[in-house]
Amino acid sequence: MRIAVVGAGALGLYYGAVLQHAGEDVSFLLRRDYDAVMEKGLTVHSIDGDFHLASVRGARRPEEIGPVDLVIVGLKTFANDRFPDLITPLVGKETLVLTLQNGLGNEEALAGLFGPDRILGGVAFLCANRGEPGTVYHLGAGRIELGAFAGASSDRVAAVAESFARGGIDCRVVADLRAARWRKLVWNIPYNGLCALLDQSVDRLQTFPTSRGLVRLIMMEVIAAANAQGLHAPIEEDFAERMLVFTDDMGVYRPSMQIDRMEGRRLELDAIFARPLAAGTSQEVDMPRVDMLHALLAIVDRNATGVDSTAD
Amino acid sequence: MRIAVVGAGALGLYYGAVLQHAGEDVSFLLRRDYDAVMEKGLTVHSIDGDFHLASVRGARRPEEIGPVDLVIVGLKTFANDRFPDLITPLVGKETLVLTLQNGLGNEEALAGLFGPDRILGGVAFLCANRGEPGTVYHLGAGRIELGAFAGASSDRVAAVAESFARGGIDCRVVADLRAARWRKLVWNIPYNGLCALLDQSVDRLQTFPTSRGLVRLIMMEVIAAANAQGLHAPIEEDFAERMLVFTDDMGVYRPSMQIDRMEGRRLELDAIFARPLAAGTSQEVDMPRVDMLHALLAIVDRNATGVDSTAD
Repeated sequence: MRIAVVGAGALGLYYGAVLQHAGEDVSFLLRRDYDAVMEKGLTVHSIDGDFHLASVRGARRPEEIGPVDLVIVGLKTFANDRFPDLITPLVGKETLVLTLQNGLGNEEALAGLFGPDRILGGVAFLCANRGEPGTVYHLGAGRIELGAFAGASSDRVAAVAESFARGGIDCRVVADLRAARWRKLVWNIPYNGLCALLDQSVDRLQTFPTSRGLVRLIMMEVIAAANAQGLHAPIEEDFAERMLVFTDDMGVYRPSMQIDRMEGRRLELDAIFARPLAAGTSQEVDMPRVDMLHALLAIVDRNATGVDSTAD
Repeated sequence: MRIAVVGAGALGLYYGAVLQHAGEDVSFLLRRDYDAVMEKGLTVHSIDGDFHLASVRGARRPEEIGPVDLVIVGLKTFANDRFPDLITPLVGKETLVLTLQNGLGNEEALAGLFGPDRILGGVAFLCANRGEPGTVYHLGAGRIELGAFAGASSDRVAAVAESFARGGIDCRVVADLRAARWRKLVWNIPYNGLCALLDQSVDRLQTFPTSRGLVRLIMMEVIAAANAQGLHAPIEEDFAERMLVFTDDMGVYRPSMQIDRMEGRRLELDAIFARPLAAGTSQEVDMPRVDMLHALLAIVDRNATGVDSTAD
């Protein structure tokens, strides 16, 4: 399969490298890492075993790659306004577009540009950071829950899942992509939000009853909003407690939004906060804590970057 | 009038100095500032005109002062467990005790120790900071709303108000001290809380619609809690908007809780957050944003000082 990776952060580099390692023909759209990757290839330091790709196809512009079978989108969601420039040259008649981005609204934005029946979404449970240019660290997990947005044939979705599986990725096809997205938001909203706001790793939220209680209250608001969306099956009542216990085993983990704040990047507030809030509000679900966390992060984001995400 | 000032932070030093300047016989219980004040006196840099007190009665222990006519309490509220040690030696048969501290619960604690009919409360609208030892900066305002807690004679309350007035303080006697406390909380809870959490001065909250909106939502929760307490008169509907406009004129003002955080002190979370929340909850008023702000500040406080205020 000819694959192009757009948005070569930790997630894009890792999954792209794994797919190439498994035999796929992968091209990477690169910016920061271009020179290093062209010169030295791509190195993956992984809990599943390190590997090095000596020869990597890199491009600075999507026109250098041209149409492919599968586009994998790993852009930060605040860069979604670049979809037309970055993805259009990669899309031919049969091309599938898979977004592995965080939060809500990404499949819809891609469907609006390229048509709904070629769009796939994947909810990635990956702990990875970029190192020096040309290097990515895979620190934990990696599972992908993959689904069609609307209309893509199940054979083609299964073929994509098999490619990931050949690379050793636990990639499951799910019937209800929206439910998978919302289930991940139950974790992402409290942990990304509070860790970024307070600049502390997840373990420090876990051990203090006040912060653990706040995480639980925020999770319950997200679950209420999710269950008002008409998912195939509602999220179970004990899901918040299970996510809390699951997180106890993560150790000193810094969610992506905390790292974005530490590194001076914009925060992914639209996809992870504004859109879930709008979805909840549209069903008259009251989400005061999620709303307040969003406001506090918008203040922090504006102070750091000068950009008012609420004006998007 | 013989007056003792307990808790010689910016507020205690300023009001004590003003009362001595107006002719009262004031003693200060001092710790950090003792040596400087004994050697050089007390200097007030004030927007109303600077003055210097060359001779100041200072003491390191309340027993050196003994019983007085009026004790003024300016302690940080997290030190209220020191009331018995610090105040008992100052209290004789006719002594009044006036707390100018923030938040709820201070009059009740004093009444429990010294009897309700000698307790006065004052809601102070003062902008002052300490400088080097023996120096206090009066930056703005200074008004006091003074009231009996329960049973003190109106003549004696009026006499205390007159002492402040002779020092140039706008000191009004109010019939409903609880209402005055709650009205100040409408300002204190959002501005002290958000400025301390985000480490930014009030002006920066004012200009950004997202933070201004959050301040307003928090004010509305406090007003709802206040109006469920059976005050003599409810807080008016437009009070939040008036407080927002009032704050527009404050400029680059840092509330006391932000300064406490900057200087590594504990935050006054019990008096300003936990007690108003308990009062609201007891009347079944939902205060999710105040509750969340309290939790976030308790996390920040514990990270900085190691003390869990929620375990008090």
